[in-house]
Amino acid sequence: MTDRAARLDIALMHHPVLNKAGETIGSAVTNLDLHDIARAARTYGVERYYVATPYRDQHELISEIIGHWQHGHGASYNPARKEALSIISVVYGLDAIVSDITDRRGQKPFIVGTSARSQKAESSFRDVRNHIAEDSSPVLLLFGTAHGLAPEIMNQADCFLPPIRGKSAYNHLSVRSAVSIILDRLLGLE
Amino acid sequence: MTDRAARLDIALMHHPVLNKAGETIGSAVTNLDLHDIARAARTYGVERYYVATPYRDQHELISEIIGHWQHGHGASYNPARKEALSIISVVYGLDAIVSDITDRRGQKPFIVGTSARSQKAESSFRDVRNHIAEDSSPVLLLFGTAHGLAPEIMNQADCFLPPIRGKSAYNHLSVRSAVSIILDRLLGLE
Repeated sequence: MTDRAARLDIALMHHPVLNKAGETIGSAVTNLDLHDIARAARTYGVERYYVATPYRDQHELISEIIGHWQHGHGASYNPARKEALSIISVVYGLDAIVSDITDRRGQKPFIVGTSARSQKAESSFRDVRNHIAEDSSPVLLLFGTAHGLAPEIMNQADCFLPPIRGKSAYNHLSVRSAVSIILDRLLGLE
Repeated sequence: MTDRAARLDIALMHHPVLNKAGETIGSAVTNLDLHDIARAARTYGVERYYVATPYRDQHELISEIIGHWQHGHGASYNPARKEALSIISVVYGLDAIVSDITDRRGQKPFIVGTSARSQKAESSFRDVRNHIAEDSSPVLLLFGTAHGLAPEIMNQADCFLPPIRGKSAYNHLSVRSAVSIILDRLLGLE
């Protein structure tokens, strides 16, 4: 797999994120966020899918879910799912992610944020795609749960991808859909 | 919304589909398939999201789920979700879908199948995108649950989209991811 892997890792942040009222909260990890995003990430050659939450009980929950598919009945029943979930790394926050990537790849990552709203420092999908293809610094894509990444995380991004737009003004994609579409735009082949 | 709507409808088939052993079965409707796919379809201006199952109890279940977001507490709590789910139409099978589209759009749809495996009669994403943009015959995109559409449904497609490919040989996307990526390739704006 190594030769096909992208210099791209992704992170799903469960804290600090915003709730409907715009307050900073920690959100709960959901089963489908683990499965759907791991499957999409594995398809596009993403090396690590970091699931970040500061809550120890959530770490235990994630380990149990993944364990079922890694070592339990699920592993023999569905080896493809085992392969996808093997790229998940459960961490406490962004500092741990940056430190792990720096260790693994020998270089600090270029942090690219995502949002359903336009941000000041936007780079086009094409520019970020080229950055990844050129094998310059490794890229870390940040995704938020709930109503999106909180300002204290947004401030740590080096740039942002534009919001995903379809043919309507409606932009309420699930994070699972957003990750899939963004990975396809950055790494997809037709 | 009418001026931005695409001449494209999508259908998620729960029968006839294949199980792991390649036998024809009917699969169960899942809550997230309703929500995630409706949100993606609404984002890209899809007019109708047909959910097809021959089982009457599944129709009741879907009505209950949708009802909560259309008329229940969910409708006031999350109007964006109400809007997305309003494009769902629950039907018994492909014949009902084709007949409804013919009534609504005055023309039989051009049926485009999807599969994780390559098919003989493939059209490129670009060709299908152009077909939709040119406002010729309306397009119906067919998606399968479980291990994909069964041959008796595949035979009714006029052509197939190529499998979605990333940078790896792994191709086990969730149907929710596949729908999102395909809608973006056919209707997305950057």
